[in-house]
Amino acid sequence: MRTKIIQNCGILRQPEAGKVAIDEGQDVLIRGNKIEQIVPTGALALDQVDEIIPARGMICLPGLVNTHAHIPMVLFRGLAEDVPVERWFNDFIWPMESNLTEEDVYWGAQLALVEMIECGVTTVADHYFYMDRVAEAVEQAGTRAVLGWASFGSQGEAMLERTAEFAEKWHHQANGRITTVIAPHAPYTCDDGFLKTAVTHAKQLGIGIHIHAAENVSQTRSSLETRGQTPIQVLAETGILDLPTIIAHGCGILPEDIQLLQQAKQVGVAHAPKTYLKLGVELTPIAALREAGIPVGLATDGAASNSTLDLFEALRLMTMMQKFVYQDPEQLPIATALEIAFGGSTAVLGLEKAIGQIKEGFLADLILVDLSGTHHQPLHNPAASLVFNVQPTDVQTVLCNGQILMQDRQLKTLDKAHIFQQVQKSMQRLAVRVPDKRIQLYNP
Amino acid sequence: MRTKIIQNCGILRQPEAGKVAIDEGQDVLIRGNKIEQIVPTGALALDQVDEIIPARGMICLPGLVNTHAHIPMVLFRGLAEDVPVERWFNDFIWPMESNLTEEDVYWGAQLALVEMIECGVTTVADHYFYMDRVAEAVEQAGTRAVLGWASFGSQGEAMLERTAEFAEKWHHQANGRITTVIAPHAPYTCDDGFLKTAVTHAKQLGIGIHIHAAENVSQTRSSLETRGQTPIQVLAETGILDLPTIIAHGCGILPEDIQLLQQAKQVGVAHAPKTYLKLGVELTPIAALREAGIPVGLATDGAASNSTLDLFEALRLMTMMQKFVYQDPEQLPIATALEIAFGGSTAVLGLEKAIGQIKEGFLADLILVDLSGTHHQPLHNPAASLVFNVQPTDVQTVLCNGQILMQDRQLKTLDKAHIFQQVQKSMQRLAVRVPDKRIQLYNP
Repeated sequence: MRTKIIQNCGILRQPEAGKVAIDEGQDVLIRGNKIEQIVPTGALALDQVDEIIPARGMICLPGLVNTHAHIPMVLFRGLAEDVPVERWFNDFIWPMESNLTEEDVYWGAQLALVEMIECGVTTVADHYFYMDRVAEAVEQAGTRAVLGWASFGSQGEAMLERTAEFAEKWHHQANGRITTVIAPHAPYTCDDGFLKTAVTHAKQLGIGIHIHAAENVSQTRSSLETRGQTPIQVLAETGILDLPTIIAHGCGILPEDIQLLQQAKQVGVAHAPKTYLKLGVELTPIAALREAGIPVGLATDGAASNSTLDLFEALRLMTMMQKFVYQDPEQLPIATALEIAFGGSTAVLGLEKAIGQIKEGFLADLILVDLSGTHHQPLHNPAASLVFNVQPTDVQTVLCNGQILMQDRQLKTLDKAHIFQQVQKSMQRLAVRVPDKRIQLYNP
Repeated sequence: MRTKIIQNCGILRQPEAGKVAIDEGQDVLIRGNKIEQIVPTGALALDQVDEIIPARGMICLPGLVNTHAHIPMVLFRGLAEDVPVERWFNDFIWPMESNLTEEDVYWGAQLALVEMIECGVTTVADHYFYMDRVAEAVEQAGTRAVLGWASFGSQGEAMLERTAEFAEKWHHQANGRITTVIAPHAPYTCDDGFLKTAVTHAKQLGIGIHIHAAENVSQTRSSLETRGQTPIQVLAETGILDLPTIIAHGCGILPEDIQLLQQAKQVGVAHAPKTYLKLGVELTPIAALREAGIPVGLATDGAASNSTLDLFEALRLMTMMQKFVYQDPEQLPIATALEIAFGGSTAVLGLEKAIGQIKEGFLADLILVDLSGTHHQPLHNPAASLVFNVQPTDVQTVLCNGQILMQDRQLKTLDKAHIFQQVQKSMQRLAVRVPDKRIQLYNP
């Protein structure tokens, strides 16, 4: 197996007990797709190594992990701004999504993957349509992904069959970089029977569920009125929480829901703060969830709400917003923020034993971040800089599964100019809003 | 006088009635330090023009205006994180500031000016110590500044004399790029007599005041308890509001203060959202101020609280936070956000007839922003991209007063490597906290 050395970098160690450690002058030896050894620079003979990646003055971090997105939605970037959730869905997104072809999704996914690689994101849990084309894009990009084909109750159970076929076909493909889940849209768009059938499919395939739930407090209220249950209770009663589950948003999770989540087999909540701010909704109850031992991870949602897929911005916003809402600057200190970004996000996806740490035996999903820019100087506090100062362009080099996807900001797997050109072709057509052709009605 | 043409750019027009206009394919003719003409590309003969700045595919904006900062505080970046305001002042910043020499301030200001130019900021209202050295740095950088030498009541009125001497010496210097103000620190650190003397000095010199006031609600409460007046009432009664005044923060402005501000001669409030989030304090009441016709402008405060001097981030946070606190995504729409960034910020400094618009006769403080990056694609909505997607490195070229300060990301006036080196030398020494040597005690 080919070997690589990332030479002479600083390494962010998993924060423990509120401390962040950055070990300077380290070499990371990669064999095939795994981290084999971490040693002080100079301790290894280099003549047996196939490739040296010089990293002096850079910090090596685990690749960032986006726990909930709809990456092809970059196609709709900027088309639904300054509008409430109802109009966002009913007047903009769902009518525009009715224009989507599989070819659009393929190029949209590629565009998003370029953006993600350029800002250091190596893994995404994606939830969208025509996911076989997203899988192809991920295969080509070289990133890691947990993919689920979204389904609405209105599409009927045959749709679930189709998404299960996709899940079966792509699980563990692309050298193991792709895994799959069943992805019913949300309790407010899927009835109990539909959700139970989703569970049956997931059980048969031995995979988990990725679902929107309790996206905001108003959804939770509606659910209580119409169904007599909170969205989380619906997940529990339909058997979803018996499976590994990614819950998107959970901003409307009530205190009484927390116990149900604690009893769940393996559940985590994806937190996409920029989207919540832009749409003027509540935040995920991060403190309560973490106190109960339920992992919270970072997310961007789709760029149609979140504008970008910049996960460093999500990290910064998560941290600052907890300080703001509690009016307490000691809330969510830097070490905790970094612990959520890596440990939390990987645990939401059930991947915490494979990625998210720079440690022998972990998969080589690694990024090199350059903190020599003016906005970090003087560098008294690299950990603070990673949370509060970093810019996407500080990410210089990105590896996933041992493969270099970007080096010194040059992409290695995707043809950016060609992707831009392909996306350009469809942009007029996709921006047309045909209200009568909306794919669904938002009325939780 | 030398002429320049910025060739073939898109131009952001001052938004009116909620609309943002970007006119594509425009040339901006600059003569000396002013914008002389704006014409469709190709309409001017180029043989009489001294210099052509190609700008195809870029958006030309007015240079960004930072209405309140302490730029040399970049020296303390990252040294006081996750702590409450009291500890931020008493245990960190004020003890560390006692280590500052004028030489430190000079190099700190230069470092900050590099950062500002690199993210498109051409004007700052700065409030700090050893301001003659900041003025020298600004003179060299080629930017615009409104400078005030900070003074505390505890320093005695002789200090005000000294700050008035500075103000007199530097007003209208550096080809008019520098103007000055009197800068008493805040009502909670200056008694009425001191503030009245500050007013006398300002009146004699025909200049304004820059002061922190009502920084948070708790300060306003303390002021009511100890002085029987809100901080804004103190400003009114001491005569400060009879002069042009920049109020920093105003997060503790009460509804009953608004009328006093409306009666003021010329007052504006500087809003630094990132600092408020990080310190867990309230936000400036932007909506109430603007409704009352009082200008609000963008600010970063110092990097010791704000981490960076990125004003695009301040723009984004301001916009998103208004949507969040009102739980209403229609609050502060894109056009208003851009209006505040340019019209609002320049009005806070009383410079709205000189800068902040791309218009014949205005000073040539202009930046070119490249929206061709992946994170803007496809570019359905350039105005949204400027508010929600832009990264500091999208700023390619910066002019101030007709002079090019950065072109294609190459600095033209400051020697970055040398500045970094100088700052490096003092960083250990400045990080030492000597509690007994703090310059002041925070106890509002």
